[in-house]
Amino acid sequence: MKLTVIKIGGNVVDSANARSVFYEQLRTLNTATILVHGGGKVATELSASLGIPTTMIEGRRVTDAETLRVVTMVYAGLINKQLVAELQSHNINALGITGADANCIRAHKRRHSQHDYGFVGDVDSVNTKFLTQLVQHDIVPVIAPLTHDGSGQLLNTNADTIAAQVASALAQTFTVDIVYCFEKLGVLKNVENDTSLIPSLTQTEYTELKANGIVAQGMIPKLDNAYSAIERGVRSVRITHYSNVNGGTLLTIG
Amino acid sequence: MKLTVIKIGGNVVDSANARSVFYEQLRTLNTATILVHGGGKVATELSASLGIPTTMIEGRRVTDAETLRVVTMVYAGLINKQLVAELQSHNINALGITGADANCIRAHKRRHSQHDYGFVGDVDSVNTKFLTQLVQHDIVPVIAPLTHDGSGQLLNTNADTIAAQVASALAQTFTVDIVYCFEKLGVLKNVENDTSLIPSLTQTEYTELKANGIVAQGMIPKLDNAYSAIERGVRSVRITHYSNVNGGTLLTIG
Repeated sequence: MKLTVIKIGGNVVDSANARSVFYEQLRTLNTATILVHGGGKVATELSASLGIPTTMIEGRRVTDAETLRVVTMVYAGLINKQLVAELQSHNINALGITGADANCIRAHKRRHSQHDYGFVGDVDSVNTKFLTQLVQHDIVPVIAPLTHDGSGQLLNTNADTIAAQVASALAQTFTVDIVYCFEKLGVLKNVENDTSLIPSLTQTEYTELKANGIVAQGMIPKLDNAYSAIERGVRSVRITHYSNVNGGTLLTIG
Repeated sequence: MKLTVIKIGGNVVDSANARSVFYEQLRTLNTATILVHGGGKVATELSASLGIPTTMIEGRRVTDAETLRVVTMVYAGLINKQLVAELQSHNINALGITGADANCIRAHKRRHSQHDYGFVGDVDSVNTKFLTQLVQHDIVPVIAPLTHDGSGQLLNTNADTIAAQVASALAQTFTVDIVYCFEKLGVLKNVENDTSLIPSLTQTEYTELKANGIVAQGMIPKLDNAYSAIERGVRSVRITHYSNVNGGTLLTIG
């Protein structure tokens, strides 16, 4: 059985138009589907309205107790439930969850030698049994980027990472493809030039591009995650525009 | 198979101590369980922080678009996921949902001759099949007081009502009891006097008390809901303190 784990980023989530285009794309997949979403911009805005400063280290949000409250409200509440209600209206039987729900994704608080990221979680395990039952019942799990530590603590976890971890864990049971959707066409040779799309990229080619500084900084964690998922049994990873889930850049092991 | 639909109100949800006492009580039930929660106070506080005025009509929150965003964040995000993470740490396999998730509770926007309540939903149907599957898998659904209209619109719906509607809908399949937990001992003859607890109350007795103005205003919708659920097949309804889920006031048809 084929399974697509599809991740949509903040800019797709923020725009009603983009969401609408994306829902139509979802219908073209014809596979079991798990959706993972981000949502950074809305969280930053809400933090600002509440006078909570936002601190980023290397593109990751430092999550103190106040910020964790904000991201829990925005990711698991506002964004997750808006997606679910809209998907239901498109006759897609969505179920919104975090990693805490049905113990789906267990994590531990990040231990980092240089920085204290606060309530940020690194994934330990995925409840493949529960997720398998959902997709076998034609339910589309919609995962907000939060996990838990099993001791009552929610943790903020990067959505790209969740997509990669969930996909790898389910690769034992399903033929799994990952699609990372965002507002660019895919991996570009020149981030300023949309015609410089790289249609396919092996891990060897990526290593060279990275060594030569050709890959944009923001793409590196996404691509590292992607190849690591392929090494753990995921069939393919696509990085593409939200209006073109079968296009963009196809990553293969090479 | 026995099922307890248990509702906890805002004051239980707001206090870490009260929640902890309540989780221990949950273990004493020894039945399948569905938990429904409120959370009005936190929503009112967040609205105030964001400069959004709160308007109540007869104890019900008027829900304009901004307020709906707030309650979606607070009910489905903050409160729901805190409960789920804590229940998981007590080895209770909780799954947090709204009425939109897996199309659990369909509603329509309230039509009211005198007031415009905004995005407030009156329940049309409950997805008993999905809820039954969850409880049969030893999962405890934790329902936030939001529903959807099937056309992409989330709706704010009273948690007492959700508990009553879910319980009635499942009374075909299970022997269902409802427990409304709050910070009072139960139904009191004199709301100022905790020793005036009424241990059991038939519908006939309630009708008399209500006619004589003895029931506190705030209790009337709760009790009306409760007897209506009993008329629709629920075995019993208990109104009790969160530390005593087997005590308080037992409502029966009489």
